[in-house]
Amino acid sequence: MYSALKERVCAANLLLPEYKLITFTWGNVSEIDRARGVVAIKPSGVSYDALCPEDIVILDLDGNVLDGKLRPSSDAATHLELYKTFPNIGGVVHTHSRWATIFAQCKRGIPALGTTHADYFYGEVPITRDMRVEEIAEEYERNTGRVIAETCARPDEVPAVLVAGHGPFTWGKDAPEAVHNAVVLEEVAFMAWHCGETDSIGQGLLDKHYLRKHGTDAYYGQAGN
Amino acid sequence: MYSALKERVCAANLLLPEYKLITFTWGNVSEIDRARGVVAIKPSGVSYDALCPEDIVILDLDGNVLDGKLRPSSDAATHLELYKTFPNIGGVVHTHSRWATIFAQCKRGIPALGTTHADYFYGEVPITRDMRVEEIAEEYERNTGRVIAETCARPDEVPAVLVAGHGPFTWGKDAPEAVHNAVVLEEVAFMAWHCGETDSIGQGLLDKHYLRKHGTDAYYGQAGN
Amino acid sequence: MYSALKERVCAANLLLPEYKLITFTWGNVSEIDRARGVVAIKPSGVSYDALCPEDIVILDLDGNVLDGKLRPSSDAATHLELYKTFPNIGGVVHTHSRWATIFAQCKRGIPALGTTHADYFYGEVPITRDMRVEEIAEEYERNTGRVIAETCARPDEVPAVLVAGHGPFTWGKDAPEAVHNAVVLEEVAFMAWHCGETDSIGQGLLDKHYLRKHGTDAYYGQAGN
Amino acid sequence: MYSALKERVCAANLLLPEYKLITFTWGNVSEIDRARGVVAIKPSGVSYDALCPEDIVILDLDGNVLDGKLRPSSDAATHLELYKTFPNIGGVVHTHSRWATIFAQCKRGIPALGTTHADYFYGEVPITRDMRVEEIAEEYERNTGRVIAETCARPDEVPAVLVAGHGPFTWGKDAPEAVHNAVVLEEVAFMAWHCGETDSIGQGLLDKHYLRKHGTDAYYGQAGN
Repeated sequence: MYSALKERVCAANLLLPEYKLITFTWGNVSEIDRARGVVAIKPSGVSYDALCPEDIVILDLDGNVLDGKLRPSSDAATHLELYKTFPNIGGVVHTHSRWATIFAQCKRGIPALGTTHADYFYGEVPITRDMRVEEIAEEYERNTGRVIAETCARPDEVPAVLVAGHGPFTWGKDAPEAVHNAVVLEEVAFMAWHCGETDSIGQGLLDKHYLRKHGTDAYYGQAGN
Repeated sequence: MYSALKERVCAANLLLPEYKLITFTWGNVSEIDRARGVVAIKPSGVSYDALCPEDIVILDLDGNVLDGKLRPSSDAATHLELYKTFPNIGGVVHTHSRWATIFAQCKRGIPALGTTHADYFYGEVPITRDMRVEEIAEEYERNTGRVIAETCARPDEVPAVLVAGHGPFTWGKDAPEAVHNAVVLEEVAFMAWHCGETDSIGQGLLDKHYLRKHGTDAYYGQAGN
Repeated sequence: MYSALKERVCAANLLLPEYKLITFTWGNVSEIDRARGVVAIKPSGVSYDALCPEDIVILDLDGNVLDGKLRPSSDAATHLELYKTFPNIGGVVHTHSRWATIFAQCKRGIPALGTTHADYFYGEVPITRDMRVEEIAEEYERNTGRVIAETCARPDEVPAVLVAGHGPFTWGKDAPEAVHNAVVLEEVAFMAWHCGETDSIGQGLLDKHYLRKHGTDAYYGQAGN
Repeated sequence: MYSALKERVCAANLLLPEYKLITFTWGNVSEIDRARGVVAIKPSGVSYDALCPEDIVILDLDGNVLDGKLRPSSDAATHLELYKTFPNIGGVVHTHSRWATIFAQCKRGIPALGTTHADYFYGEVPITRDMRVEEIAEEYERNTGRVIAETCARPDEVPAVLVAGHGPFTWGKDAPEAVHNAVVLEEVAFMAWHCGETDSIGQGLLDKHYLRKHGTDAYYGQAGN
């Protein structure tokens, strides 16, 4: 019944080790089918080497397991919160990728220092505030989603966030695009770290590069892509 | 007589080059069989390319060779000391992995700067004090184990240590878990180095992440794992 | 009609992922056939995994598509400007390779700190000035080429530039040599970043190394190479 | 006539790309046959992908080509000078490996910061003085060897040097050991760079680790190795 969705989500999860965004089981990808109101997500603690489509867990938006024999990712409640709050997104990725996590641990956002950043993120990738003791103690994963939602004023133009002390979440129109953005985030984090105290690029260059790839006047890539 | 143990320990040793924790022969893995009072360990100076189960050396807890044609790792006495002092551990790993060794050379512990660290190490990974001239001159390897034991107040909650000027040791319930912890240590060392003077995460987040993976209320992974 | 040229340029483009200079589609290689007045270039936004010779686009020097079904690289106008301004070059490469891009984002040139640099670049690799708002708003890619031309006083002796806030362009007598120089640039950028405030090597060593590989008295390599 | 020597030297050269010490043709390995008074060395500027034993060039100690159709490495005169000055060495390696070259460009020696260093180098890896203008202008490569000889007081205990502004040379009892030392040098350079202003390890630990691997009382490895 959910086999196509499970295959897509399994394949998207397997991109994480391929792009070297993952150590062991430290990450997860999900995708929502908004028409059916279900989310497919990686099971918790399952090795990527062995992951297959049948392992993917299907949840409703309240987190109930509709299909699948395994427990969903322990971060599932964060994913669900993002799908509920950001109406245009279709896929979510969480990793502990090295460079984005370094910024998360340093509690620093990633400023737009170059056109590589501007091609994907229309401004700084934000850092969340610290979570409060009571937010950690109860409904921790769901509250993580709430703090992300509180932080991200423009989720469609900046499809990434750094959770303070933890690591990155990215999203996109579907699971593969969310993974794509996770790769880009790692790349811009790497370069931003080594740039140190450099100023952000000007608004003109930010506009030019973001808008030549996104929106109605975009001219990067092939027509219809 | 020890063939299953030798196979396990050989396989665990071969994980070191697979996880890129090793250059040449700079590392070793051992496992204890507490019922029989024997430890299996890599032979000294043997290339990982050629390592096979028959090469693994079986020692009693006093360091006498019970089985095997090769000399045991020159660090064997350190491993034995750890098994004698830490009653719950079953496997020990020593490497010169780059990032953990950098902290060891800088004589700095690795603070818990994020949830990646907290998922595995319930607080700072400690650094040993410098060894005294007489501790180096006589029974150097055994004294290395003694200094580690003196340093590690909570070996079960923080299964890793940095030996000052030398490099890391990690442990676990068995050899594969000790290797797993060696990979995690390298990862958190990498990130901590790049975080510079960042503050540790709060106790609430440290508790949450350590305890969602460890202990009776853990909910990460699949039941029975 | 252009099949040999397309094959050469396709092969040169495929060197970018082989040398790990590229993430996704972030880069492009072109080559000019000066006798015929045409330039062959990668199509825009096409994945390197799928790139084949038929995808390569043939342009005249005004940017009109003479052959090919796909849109040319969005950076084509920069390449054309360089071919028009630098009469001796035959190939151009643009990437967002990590270390060269870090220098571009920091708006720093790469000084000649060692013989590795001197073997290929006869002095500092320059950084362009910031582009003006109106240069970005209109004919951005062509103006990028103009700013590069304005910056590079000795394009034959220093076949590379860093575009401020953006990334590197390199060139050479043909497309493979331009890629070769892109690899070298990344290598010298890596080393220069880690050298920090180090002084440039002296003129004597710069002359010796550049001239033992280039010009009439060169003695590096095999005769006729 | 020299086929065994050529095969050994070809194989040792091919270790350089295997250990990722090389970009393009930036490095060379040689070995001396002291009984016959000949040195085998890589040809200049030949790609490692295509290198085969017949390409290796045989020189006498004055640099005359005795056998081989290609030009020897442009650094051959440096190798010859080292063989003449250091009576116990049998193999020499030159690379532009990244981390050792960074120290060479910074004109810093590599202090003994840990046991990894002490296992191979019995003290700091030295940096040469700058070469004088006249030393560069005439007999540059031979003078490079002379400056190395002037710098290295204990070539047998510290089989490596950094040539200021240029890069590393290492040596050993034969070509494979010289390559082995080049790998170790890169590893200790990497770690030393990241240790910043750390103090060297004490003499006791330096002695212990160097002497447990080298000399008459060594006990690392297997007997007879």
